[in-house]
Amino acid sequence: MVNTTSQCDDIIDDYGLKGAFCKLSGHCGVAGVTAEKESASYVFLALRALQHRGQESAGIATSVDNQIECFRGMGLVHEVFNTQRLATFKGTSCIGHIRYSTTGASELKNAQPVVASSSIGDLAIAHNGDIVNAGKFRDELREKGWAFFTTTDSEVMIRLLANELVNTGGDIFHALQNLMRVIIGSYSIVLLVGGKVLAVRDPLGIKPLCIGKLNDCKGYVVTSESVAFDAINATFIRDVAPGEIVELGMNRYKSYRNFSGTVAPNTHSACAHCMFEWVYFARPDSIIDGVSVYEVRNKIGKKLAEEHRVDADVIIPIPDSGRAHAVGYSEGTGIPFREGLIKNRYVARTFIMPEPSMRETEVKLKLNPIKSVIEGKRVVLMDDSIVRGTTMRRIVQMVRNAGAREVHVRIGCPPIISPCYLGIDMKTRSQFIAKPSDSKRQDYTRVAKMIGADSLAHISIEGLVECIGIPKGNLCLGCLTEKYPVEIPGERTR
Amino acid sequence: MVNTTSQCDDIIDDYGLKGAFCKLSGHCGVAGVTAEKESASYVFLALRALQHRGQESAGIATSVDNQIECFRGMGLVHEVFNTQRLATFKGTSCIGHIRYSTTGASELKNAQPVVASSSIGDLAIAHNGDIVNAGKFRDELREKGWAFFTTTDSEVMIRLLANELVNTGGDIFHALQNLMRVIIGSYSIVLLVGGKVLAVRDPLGIKPLCIGKLNDCKGYVVTSESVAFDAINATFIRDVAPGEIVELGMNRYKSYRNFSGTVAPNTHSACAHCMFEWVYFARPDSIIDGVSVYEVRNKIGKKLAEEHRVDADVIIPIPDSGRAHAVGYSEGTGIPFREGLIKNRYVARTFIMPEPSMRETEVKLKLNPIKSVIEGKRVVLMDDSIVRGTTMRRIVQMVRNAGAREVHVRIGCPPIISPCYLGIDMKTRSQFIAKPSDSKRQDYTRVAKMIGADSLAHISIEGLVECIGIPKGNLCLGCLTEKYPVEIPGERTR
Amino acid sequence: MVNTTSQCDDIIDDYGLKGAFCKLSGHCGVAGVTAEKESASYVFLALRALQHRGQESAGIATSVDNQIECFRGMGLVHEVFNTQRLATFKGTSCIGHIRYSTTGASELKNAQPVVASSSIGDLAIAHNGDIVNAGKFRDELREKGWAFFTTTDSEVMIRLLANELVNTGGDIFHALQNLMRVIIGSYSIVLLVGGKVLAVRDPLGIKPLCIGKLNDCKGYVVTSESVAFDAINATFIRDVAPGEIVELGMNRYKSYRNFSGTVAPNTHSACAHCMFEWVYFARPDSIIDGVSVYEVRNKIGKKLAEEHRVDADVIIPIPDSGRAHAVGYSEGTGIPFREGLIKNRYVARTFIMPEPSMRETEVKLKLNPIKSVIEGKRVVLMDDSIVRGTTMRRIVQMVRNAGAREVHVRIGCPPIISPCYLGIDMKTRSQFIAKPSDSKRQDYTRVAKMIGADSLAHISIEGLVECIGIPKGNLCLGCLTEKYPVEIPGERTR
Amino acid sequence: MVNTTSQCDDIIDDYGLKGAFCKLSGHCGVAGVTAEKESASYVFLALRALQHRGQESAGIATSVDNQIECFRGMGLVHEVFNTQRLATFKGTSCIGHIRYSTTGASELKNAQPVVASSSIGDLAIAHNGDIVNAGKFRDELREKGWAFFTTTDSEVMIRLLANELVNTGGDIFHALQNLMRVIIGSYSIVLLVGGKVLAVRDPLGIKPLCIGKLNDCKGYVVTSESVAFDAINATFIRDVAPGEIVELGMNRYKSYRNFSGTVAPNTHSACAHCMFEWVYFARPDSIIDGVSVYEVRNKIGKKLAEEHRVDADVIIPIPDSGRAHAVGYSEGTGIPFREGLIKNRYVARTFIMPEPSMRETEVKLKLNPIKSVIEGKRVVLMDDSIVRGTTMRRIVQMVRNAGAREVHVRIGCPPIISPCYLGIDMKTRSQFIAKPSDSKRQDYTRVAKMIGADSLAHISIEGLVECIGIPKGNLCLGCLTEKYPVEIPGERTR
Repeated sequence: MVNTTSQCDDIIDDYGLKGAFCKLSGHCGVAGVTAEKESASYVFLALRALQHRGQESAGIATSVDNQIECFRGMGLVHEVFNTQRLATFKGTSCIGHIRYSTTGASELKNAQPVVASSSIGDLAIAHNGDIVNAGKFRDELREKGWAFFTTTDSEVMIRLLANELVNTGGDIFHALQNLMRVIIGSYSIVLLVGGKVLAVRDPLGIKPLCIGKLNDCKGYVVTSESVAFDAINATFIRDVAPGEIVELGMNRYKSYRNFSGTVAPNTHSACAHCMFEWVYFARPDSIIDGVSVYEVRNKIGKKLAEEHRVDADVIIPIPDSGRAHAVGYSEGTGIPFREGLIKNRYVARTFIMPEPSMRETEVKLKLNPIKSVIEGKRVVLMDDSIVRGTTMRRIVQMVRNAGAREVHVRIGCPPIISPCYLGIDMKTRSQFIAKPSDSKRQDYTRVAKMIGADSLAHISIEGLVECIGIPKGNLCLGCLTEKYPVEIPGERTR
Repeated sequence: MVNTTSQCDDIIDDYGLKGAFCKLSGHCGVAGVTAEKESASYVFLALRALQHRGQESAGIATSVDNQIECFRGMGLVHEVFNTQRLATFKGTSCIGHIRYSTTGASELKNAQPVVASSSIGDLAIAHNGDIVNAGKFRDELREKGWAFFTTTDSEVMIRLLANELVNTGGDIFHALQNLMRVIIGSYSIVLLVGGKVLAVRDPLGIKPLCIGKLNDCKGYVVTSESVAFDAINATFIRDVAPGEIVELGMNRYKSYRNFSGTVAPNTHSACAHCMFEWVYFARPDSIIDGVSVYEVRNKIGKKLAEEHRVDADVIIPIPDSGRAHAVGYSEGTGIPFREGLIKNRYVARTFIMPEPSMRETEVKLKLNPIKSVIEGKRVVLMDDSIVRGTTMRRIVQMVRNAGAREVHVRIGCPPIISPCYLGIDMKTRSQFIAKPSDSKRQDYTRVAKMIGADSLAHISIEGLVECIGIPKGNLCLGCLTEKYPVEIPGERTR
Repeated sequence: MVNTTSQCDDIIDDYGLKGAFCKLSGHCGVAGVTAEKESASYVFLALRALQHRGQESAGIATSVDNQIECFRGMGLVHEVFNTQRLATFKGTSCIGHIRYSTTGASELKNAQPVVASSSIGDLAIAHNGDIVNAGKFRDELREKGWAFFTTTDSEVMIRLLANELVNTGGDIFHALQNLMRVIIGSYSIVLLVGGKVLAVRDPLGIKPLCIGKLNDCKGYVVTSESVAFDAINATFIRDVAPGEIVELGMNRYKSYRNFSGTVAPNTHSACAHCMFEWVYFARPDSIIDGVSVYEVRNKIGKKLAEEHRVDADVIIPIPDSGRAHAVGYSEGTGIPFREGLIKNRYVARTFIMPEPSMRETEVKLKLNPIKSVIEGKRVVLMDDSIVRGTTMRRIVQMVRNAGAREVHVRIGCPPIISPCYLGIDMKTRSQFIAKPSDSKRQDYTRVAKMIGADSLAHISIEGLVECIGIPKGNLCLGCLTEKYPVEIPGERTR
Repeated sequence: MVNTTSQCDDIIDDYGLKGAFCKLSGHCGVAGVTAEKESASYVFLALRALQHRGQESAGIATSVDNQIECFRGMGLVHEVFNTQRLATFKGTSCIGHIRYSTTGASELKNAQPVVASSSIGDLAIAHNGDIVNAGKFRDELREKGWAFFTTTDSEVMIRLLANELVNTGGDIFHALQNLMRVIIGSYSIVLLVGGKVLAVRDPLGIKPLCIGKLNDCKGYVVTSESVAFDAINATFIRDVAPGEIVELGMNRYKSYRNFSGTVAPNTHSACAHCMFEWVYFARPDSIIDGVSVYEVRNKIGKKLAEEHRVDADVIIPIPDSGRAHAVGYSEGTGIPFREGLIKNRYVARTFIMPEPSMRETEVKLKLNPIKSVIEGKRVVLMDDSIVRGTTMRRIVQMVRNAGAREVHVRIGCPPIISPCYLGIDMKTRSQFIAKPSDSKRQDYTRVAKMIGADSLAHISIEGLVECIGIPKGNLCLGCLTEKYPVEIPGERTR
């Protein structure tokens, strides 16, 4: 078996939209750079700083003499690209993408950037987000006789955009506006068209995107999170505005916004930033839409201390995600903070043991309690969120086995009760341990029992909004409230 | 660096057609099987028997519940597929493809089968041949707003076919006929549509394709060369006719032909089998369009003995391609046959030595003369054909260095003087050592001098045609005569 | 290039002993299991729990019908072994080893277990520690005409042991005692001899080793750290005593100790546990020689708060090693604890950027400051130890660049001023930033200046001993005091 | 699973010697070069020219400042070494080795060169041949308390040699003579000692070894076959004499021979060249002990035509080994030579099909008959030798199925009836299809029946000896006559 393989199976990912099937791009990271020199190296470093946003595949595209060269591969950024490979990217404009594994399958054809050749020239796209109505367009176009090579929303977008480019005689801004008028969903996009890097953020600003200026040479950069600027010695300028199109240049960048007619929110023109970026997804050292991720998590811990104090001897974070919250809770309550659960850094993924009886032990390898911290104590466990609850149930049991007298669970996010159609890989209602009724009554005793905890408490929606510090109307809380900022068949709109 | 990578650079292969650029599929092998069981294993074995037709990439596609599953990879068939992989192909209908490396670049995206999803369902295609006007269609469709993901003629074909399928309401035979009416070139195609295997041969029958019946279970098979039938215990039925469409079933196969309006030859309806299959490309143990490849080569040797006798002591083949011809020449002339050049079976490809002075030695590793066979002798070297002449020049020198008194070169093919646009990777005039004038005068002293030989002779066109035993009007001799069976901008038509 | 390679270069690692060169095994992890079933799986899981003790190579050996089968490979335990491989180990007795990369070179021949065939039968050894006089034995044996295949102390040991086995007529305990009488250094060893697992700890108990009982089936286990018992559901019984030999059985284990004449400490019979296991090397969730590693680290933080209080706004750990200490310091001083430095989990090793100017950025990728936590603050940075000081200098600078008003460094280990010859990879005096005089005067201003800190303080030796809770005379403090528990040419003995 | 692995299982290869077990080196290729520059590249190219002598592993060792650096890996020479790797070998003296796969297992630890460190310095050895009494020495040394790491005769030799080096105070020639006095068997050895390349051939000259002079720079070369000289532009000087030791220099080479007391043949001082080198093992373009391999094979064909003429229509070689013989037989009998069996060059090794019923087809993939050559004909099949007869039986059946009227088999080697203990991988009597009685009576009807042939004939021993042209007393014919040139327990001596 050679290693250079590609599986072109057409798995279609039904997430409940009637008559509209399309695999969504989901959780990803994007970066685009126009630089006097080494633009591919800047993109490479930016993608590595964003690696937490996706570990499945990585890709970089550049434009040379109006032709686009692209290399993509499965794995981490530094596994896909080496020094030799980077040196082959000669253009001053580059875009890059890292993809989160949503399916577990390794399919290079879902990797990005996607490159296509139009009559106007080559174009490349890297996309973070989900286009809700991509399936509808795909169906319509197939009825017209188009054949599709993948089931991704990225293929739909690049083909629609190429079509608009021809319709508009190659006017990319006009073409992008036409595209933004019809597609619905979340999209932070970097594009390579006509040798230039463009960045587009959806009208609601659902997924993050920000602009920076390179310090070591002329040029500009756009990226999913500000943490990438630290890695490449760039200075943060500002977030890309919802609905804005930005064109990077060597000496300045241009902004296009306030054009009418894009598919804006249903009833209002405000934005809808995804709250989950602050709660869990973004790196703590990033600043998203003006708000420090670390500070939000620390405040959440303190807010939880206010909302759901408990008499306990020790507060223990689930590593690594609950740590910042736990320090805040410790400060708010005075309960000592201890790292009572140790994560094995080398247990990357589950290894299937030959003997079934030994499979359970794999779990213990990943996380191990420190008995001296736990034994005889009333323990508070802190984590960022609960989705299915299965892992939390196992951890509660593990802490009890280590001798805890009581185990209380505190969660830095209100109960997730509804699917995300806009960029997080939670597509079915049935997976959530919490029910809408739990959330409404703010009564978590049912779930506490399921996970074996003496008590369970979530931060309130109001508390979360307060910690983020952005008006509730400007956040997407769909997975918490069942009310979405864009129309989704079968779901309510906020 | 992980190994699972894909380079999506858009190299466009200009071969001189004005305004029409498209990378051609070229030299390949195809197979399709409908079988009661193990259809993927049959395709796998058939492709391995056809491995000489392409070593760059291999792929197999099957149809299960009207969805197509496909796996492709770089390398030899047994490197791409292992037992586990084969076992995943569950359908009773399978097609497969092996691709010849024409560019040297390793690009998985050029691998076949190509799979696409249309409103009628999934379809897959594996293609051997070149579509001459693919570039024209690609340009027209891009003007209409279509974006293309590759520069291959295969992408053009599958998208045109999907379009026709919608236009004809899913009638595959009608759609194929419409396609065949507009595409010009060589094509032996296997298709997977609606869960069935179809095979199509172009109206001139340029590239080979034949039908067989499985002996070990119910089912039928189509493949590029009959040699594949020997490998899978199938019985040869007949060649697919020029312009015929065949549908494989479990108990019988159906044939569709004689429909009017396909793009037939320019002035006559006869076929145009590529003579190069018998001269060099096909395996000696295959029978192509009723003619044994080995016998043709043996006869060529004898014919050369008639046409271009020489006084010599020993006849030595260039291994492995000149062996059958050399035995014929030996028998025709009485000059003893000796294997005076030994090929190193383990020197697969050139290894770049660190020291430039040592690079020349790499050549000697590949081929080594036996001094005792050559020293003091008048040697005849025999090969199937000459294209650039560089290798032959080195070999003549090597044989002289080993002590040959005279070196005469005899070639089993008339001089190649004109590009092939229909499936062989010889696309530019400038590469050929022979000139049209040499060929016309049948005077090869100029080239003999260039390669350092005491004499050089080619079989005549008439001699070659006689050895093949098919009327000259039914052969494609474009690369020998500069007259082509289909219209090619800037070239003459026969 | 195939991947299965081995470099047999003979790098000799001179660490200053006159006339005695031998590469030492150094930092490693060992495990041995005798179990009714799945003994290799138990060893596999134990090694994974010990993975922090070594990531270079892994190996497992088993004994079947008195013949030993062994598999070793470069990489992490789960990279070297898969399900199929594990299933091939059929014996009820198994030993395993993981090796720490001390040289950076990848040399499979240094991997363990080492297997040899003697006239008494096969034997295998896995060793954690350094034999100080291995080089002397190697030289003597070479003078006698022996040829050596590696430069490891493990080869010396297994050959000496095989020799003793013959001398003693196959009495393994007698042979081991004879070996222990002559070898000097640190050694926690697991052996496979005569189908049985034996464990040996050096007379000073320098490196850890402990015994446990399997809960899920009959059998016993020895391992470097108790954390492995958690992973395989075994119950901790006790530490192996200094100078003890343990033989594992299915229903019980046998202990051999108090035999006279082993090479004990120089002047006294007490033990000499390596203090660095608690300070840095062992996992926080292990208990070593009766003392919880986590508790020691937490106490060190509190002790430092006593010894070296400072007026500051925030205490920030260097992740991940300084975290437990920092929490203790925070509690002792009341200064808030914050995770102000974020580690990029995906930056495993340095990637050399093509452009020199960009190489510095690689550092920023690994560790990034949170500006909001640091800006305008008086910061205390906490780490477990300082060796060369280069990393700390960069981090101090990074924290200043992020806006810190003051940067104070607190270190949970007294200054390291002298090489370790007994198991830690610090072999040369010149590498240490601290000088003996700094340590004697407890004045760190010189080093503080070198690393750019406003102040630097280490815990005192007495403070450290108090936190560990084991009498000073029973600890090896050689790297801190220049006085070693065994005779080392050119060094003082305590 | 990482790829860099090593299996250290101790498989002991009993070949029937009472009380003496040792795995033998067997069929291999060796090369040694002392050159002004690029000595490793010369060894690399020589090994590639010798690749037919072994495909399992490859290794090169060089000496720099009296320390030996060595790299070995599994696979073909150009797979183990790349340009970067070659460039790391800095010494002017290099030796190399390629190993034939005798067991099928991939064990790097059996790869050569073997390197060891003695008190006199490092030494490396690469060995082609079998030491018959290696097992005896191994047993004796283990009784003395030595532990062995492999079961190879190479480990025994290097350790004995290191021991002799110490005994002789570092006098390598004296040490080698002492070694040659006690070891019995076949050995063509290249050594790296004291920074110099030495070559040794056993007193009977069983395996080939020859000396050449570099033409492109100062220096000398020794290698298993003269064909390697063609690859590196060296001039053949002469074969190394039986019992000779050669030391390579930059400007000349030194020879040491005629020292008394080496373990010479049993009753006479003549040599015993292995006849199988000419019959099968060596490359046709080599000259072994003054005799062209190709000419021997051609003569064998002619001799067979004399000894065993048959009335037939066509003579077909089994490719590739029977080709030279078949041309000779064709010339001797006048029966036309045809390549009626085509070998698939891409079927390197057997691929296990998922369905048992399809496994048989794998055979057909490797070799395929040309029906037009065979059908209705009386066919003579020609091969170099028969060992088990299973392959020949299948081929005879295949040729019958293709329509042959008669199938006669002619074999270029007398029946193999007895094991080889001296370098060819035929270790057990039970494997041979021929019996001593067949050979004695020269009646092959029993075997002809077993393989399904109409007639079977072997060349006579006298005929073979005549074709080689070396006196019978100077050849090793043990596998044909059951009489061996050295004492082998349980076998007769010639």
